[in-house]
Amino acid sequence: MKKIEIVEVGPRDGLQNEVQSLSVDQRLNFIDQLVAAGLRRIEVGAFVSPKWVPQMNQSFELIQELLNSKRKYPKDVRFSALVPNRKGMELAEKTSLKEIAVFGASSESFSQKNINCSMREGLERFQEVIKMARPTKIKVRGYLSVAFGCPYEGLVKESVVRKQIEKYLELGMYEISIGDTIGVATPKQVRSLLKKVSQDVGLKKVAMHFHDTRGTALANVLASLDLGVRVFDSSFGGLGGCPYAKGASGNLATEDLVYMLHGMGFETGVKLEKLIQISPGIENLIQHGLPSRVARAGLPL
Amino acid sequence: MKKIEIVEVGPRDGLQNEVQSLSVDQRLNFIDQLVAAGLRRIEVGAFVSPKWVPQMNQSFELIQELLNSKRKYPKDVRFSALVPNRKGMELAEKTSLKEIAVFGASSESFSQKNINCSMREGLERFQEVIKMARPTKIKVRGYLSVAFGCPYEGLVKESVVRKQIEKYLELGMYEISIGDTIGVATPKQVRSLLKKVSQDVGLKKVAMHFHDTRGTALANVLASLDLGVRVFDSSFGGLGGCPYAKGASGNLATEDLVYMLHGMGFETGVKLEKLIQISPGIENLIQHGLPSRVARAGLPL
Repeated sequence: MKKIEIVEVGPRDGLQNEVQSLSVDQRLNFIDQLVAAGLRRIEVGAFVSPKWVPQMNQSFELIQELLNSKRKYPKDVRFSALVPNRKGMELAEKTSLKEIAVFGASSESFSQKNINCSMREGLERFQEVIKMARPTKIKVRGYLSVAFGCPYEGLVKESVVRKQIEKYLELGMYEISIGDTIGVATPKQVRSLLKKVSQDVGLKKVAMHFHDTRGTALANVLASLDLGVRVFDSSFGGLGGCPYAKGASGNLATEDLVYMLHGMGFETGVKLEKLIQISPGIENLIQHGLPSRVARAGLPL
Repeated sequence: MKKIEIVEVGPRDGLQNEVQSLSVDQRLNFIDQLVAAGLRRIEVGAFVSPKWVPQMNQSFELIQELLNSKRKYPKDVRFSALVPNRKGMELAEKTSLKEIAVFGASSESFSQKNINCSMREGLERFQEVIKMARPTKIKVRGYLSVAFGCPYEGLVKESVVRKQIEKYLELGMYEISIGDTIGVATPKQVRSLLKKVSQDVGLKKVAMHFHDTRGTALANVLASLDLGVRVFDSSFGGLGGCPYAKGASGNLATEDLVYMLHGMGFETGVKLEKLIQISPGIENLIQHGLPSRVARAGLPL
């Protein structure tokens, strides 16, 4: 199969890590442009306290507006939002959102410092959220962060990651996004983990979420493609990163991912030229240049 | 075999494309630091007219000084310099340099605009230089630029590249550095070319020279590693690029290459921590930040 699903995390994971907050209207306009450029799976907000994450303020209003039937999006567009806990899920349920995502970690220290609970407590929260999602058939995606390395503990054991993946699936998540949150992974590590996960539970429900902090994101994508992964997360322009990781220059840029995938004959549905044209407006709003290399260099002849 | 040879092109290909020219002493100091960080093959200068390439001025004096027996370098250090023609070779012969490099292209337009001659005339110049190199047993390396795409002609035909490689080898070059000069290649293209070259002439004399202009350099390195390539060019900090290519943010950074190789269990002899420490001094001299992602993010825990 030559089709790749891209999960665009710019409006959530990306913007959440920017100093400048965008208004609901600015975010709506950004999301509209992403859809127009062909992106179909977009994480658009987070049901978190604006006290903690001001960039995601009014996510409820934003999502209500996005799902307003007067806004005409192609039928295959899928919006989702991050839900950290029961309270967030109560809000999500009041929208007609069909997908949400939860966020967990592969190391105790990262879980404690980033999510404020142990890995086990994190799984319990997921269970609660998933139980709430069942009656309305809201699909739940799970982020498994720091799967290759933790900023506090260093290298993360493959066995821990594999166990977490199994638990996520047991809980009923439809997809697991395995994240190299601080951008330390190299293809050898990716291959080793994915081969084992492939044997454990298969790769059908696996998405990969790489950061380009050390330039290895696309090499890791290549390693994952070779093993059969067909879903990748990326962030428009390379927006965002991990605020808890020193010098983390951030998420893999969607433009760079799409450039490589198209060059390799994969279909993504994205119109790359159109995607690149979104940059100047967003750079203007966030008041700095975006790191996407393809957006900077432009498309070749 | 888990050993990789890195050809460090920063002091030549890198500095040549910087606005600020470094003095001979500054360049000597830079090269000393590269050697101290474990690099063993370094392109240190070019025997070209300072009128055309002021950044490479006094390359003769620089190389004389580098080869001065009073300077103590490890025995396996190999310096080389770019030689464009007979005149350059006459200078190179006056030094005790044991290796030089010549530069050619895979497209007529790039050859005309960049080297001021046709591809055929380029090969004739190489022949002349190689003939001069024979009596003193100076080894000649050949750069084959724009092997994956040309800024003027677009996609470059694989058949043209394969023919050029065969001609380079027939002329007696000990190594061919196949270059993605404007950073357009994706791993599919790299695999396709290398599989054919492998059948044509083998990969023993092949080095790959990738640019990270569109973020694909390390993915292309991975594709090349998988097929057996064991020599890669890179530029300290990501210095330089191609001045004739719009927006070309440049050469693959040595730090990024080494990070991935070490992460995959390959040996390069480079002390990455030491290499990264060179950055601030060079950034100070060239008066801007270097693009290496690893140098910016630092090494993980």
